Amino acid sequence: MLRRIVADDDPRMLVAPGDDAAVVEPGPGSLVLTADLLVEGVHFRRETISARDLGYKAVAVNVSDVAAMGASPRYALVSLACPADLAPAWLVELHGGIRDAAAEYALHVAGGDVTRADAAVVSVALTGEAPRGRAITRAGARPGDVVAVTGELGAAAGGLLLTESAPHEAAAVAGTEWARDLLRAFSRPHARVGEGAALAAAGASAMIDVSDGLALDLTRLCAASGVGARVRLDALPVAAGLRPLAAVLHADPLALALGGGEDYELLVTLPAAAVSTAAAVLHESFGTPLTVVGEVTERSGVVALDAAGAERPLEPSGWDHLAG
Amino acid sequence: MLRRIVADDDPRMLVAPGDDAAVVEPGPGSLVLTADLLVEGVHFRRETISARDLGYKAVAVNVSDVAAMGASPRYALVSLACPADLAPAWLVELHGGIRDAAAEYALHVAGGDVTRADAAVVSVALTGEAPRGRAITRAGARPGDVVAVTGELGAAAGGLLLTESAPHEAAAVAGTEWARDLLRAFSRPHARVGEGAALAAAGASAMIDVSDGLALDLTRLCAASGVGARVRLDALPVAAGLRPLAAVLHADPLALALGGGEDYELLVTLPAAAVSTAAAVLHESFGTPLTVVGEVTERSGVVALDAAGAERPLEPSGWDHLAG
Repeated sequence: MLRRIVADDDPRMLVAPGDDAAVVEPGPGSLVLTADLLVEGVHFRRETISARDLGYKAVAVNVSDVAAMGASPRYALVSLACPADLAPAWLVELHGGIRDAAAEYALHVAGGDVTRADAAVVSVALTGEAPRGRAITRAGARPGDVVAVTGELGAAAGGLLLTESAPHEAAAVAGTEWARDLLRAFSRPHARVGEGAALAAAGASAMIDVSDGLALDLTRLCAASGVGARVRLDALPVAAGLRPLAAVLHADPLALALGGGEDYELLVTLPAAAVSTAAAVLHESFGTPLTVVGEVTERSGVVALDAAGAERPLEPSGWDHLAG
Repeated sequence: MLRRIVADDDPRMLVAPGDDAAVVEPGPGSLVLTADLLVEGVHFRRETISARDLGYKAVAVNVSDVAAMGASPRYALVSLACPADLAPAWLVELHGGIRDAAAEYALHVAGGDVTRADAAVVSVALTGEAPRGRAITRAGARPGDVVAVTGELGAAAGGLLLTESAPHEAAAVAGTEWARDLLRAFSRPHARVGEGAALAAAGASAMIDVSDGLALDLTRLCAASGVGARVRLDALPVAAGLRPLAAVLHADPLALALGGGEDYELLVTLPAAAVSTAAAVLHESFGTPLTVVGEVTERSGVVALDAAGAERPLEPSGWDHLAG
């Protein structure tokens, strides 16, 4: 079945999936390698995400890791474990979502494995290509660099809240544009491939994708770089839909923007002089905003500065608006 | 935790696991890609395989796919899903087995993912490298080529029978050398990397690893090549331990050799003139026997020739010694 979804025309694929292994001609760049596993009941529930979105998302979350290196995705290996009760149509849709992502991110599926299991598992490994010796790690941030983030934050966490909300709450907002945007951010996250390459070219010193919330991922970046950071809370690009969401559900937009995961935006550090050019390129080439949210500090630890000028540690475990 | 098992010294690894993705310098050859997923309750039971053997085997079965292309393994991505009740020691042992395989096959673990799940899942993706444009597929067998196989057949299936046997049966043979050999073939299969490269260099026209039994895998090779094959049953290198096993358990050595899976031997087709050199190289370099078991035919379909000269179709589903 995996063989069928790979009937595309990659001139670099010398041996297509279906043999013991696929064989491809590597490009001139460095080889980037990453893998992510989505497990039913842990990362998704079949009741709250369509098979098509799940297939897309399983690929996109790996593409996001490659994008965060300033690299481009090339080949995916997709291994599936499927319960016996899965309808064939569900698998067809899952493959459709994988194909959607392959088309959108210009990558090729080079094989994988299909097996039985009690819970569905989608395991994706992805190769990518980075300009030789030019991959952007988490470790290059320097004191004085600015901290910036693409797009907006908290939308995926808002979408997750909506999918988990009670039927009468969901019904109250169904059909609104902001609810659709939040749900889409959760179920079809967009990996920032072009933006990652542009940020690398613009002089990014460190980069990470926001998979576990800005607070935690910025803490990781700072730890890898041996620096700290100061984040201005009133500068955060909080997703627009979180305000109407907060009016319906018990939710704190700022907490979702800081602690909610799965945004798959890029969190980047840049020399101050490089920011305006980087922002202009992202806006012109991709229509993607780049928002400066803080700066890298010599002192380790990540602190949040509120609108009143008060500073306190930004806990990587998430944001509690009652603390401090 | 995955980070710790990759603290080796690969000069080609530019960015080690722990960042969004690993970055490595590709070698000069073609890039080979494969993936295999092992699921608890489907491919293994924690009661019958040690964590260390499981970790080793999860890597080795992927290495075997790369070996069957005449290629060498390079980088593994290992994703784990673990039930909450798994003892930390089990995971440490699993990683030990992965490390054992990495050392034995000279490959590096370049990352992966760890997550929760109800059943344990070990998902491995592997890159390899083949001499440029020289990978051996399943599709090159020509009528007149000989069919040969490395090592011996049926040992892993015998080992599986032993692990699944009743306690009093297992106790009766515990400690015998043949039982240990069979159990080891099942729990620590050896991938034939050097042999695969040597067979490719010796002129192999097609190659596949025997993961699902000779009957099925030879049928696959013939289908991919658009040919048939005739197998001489009395030429098969039936594993030595299957004879004493058959005396203890209800088991047919020939059926296990033809239909038992997980041997991970290489099944290869070669021009007749190339066989003696190939066999000599395998014997001298690796101590591995190469046994001619039949020949490639123009007529499609795989047939078995018994010692009495009678011919009948070799069913890919396995061998029934009462049929025919």
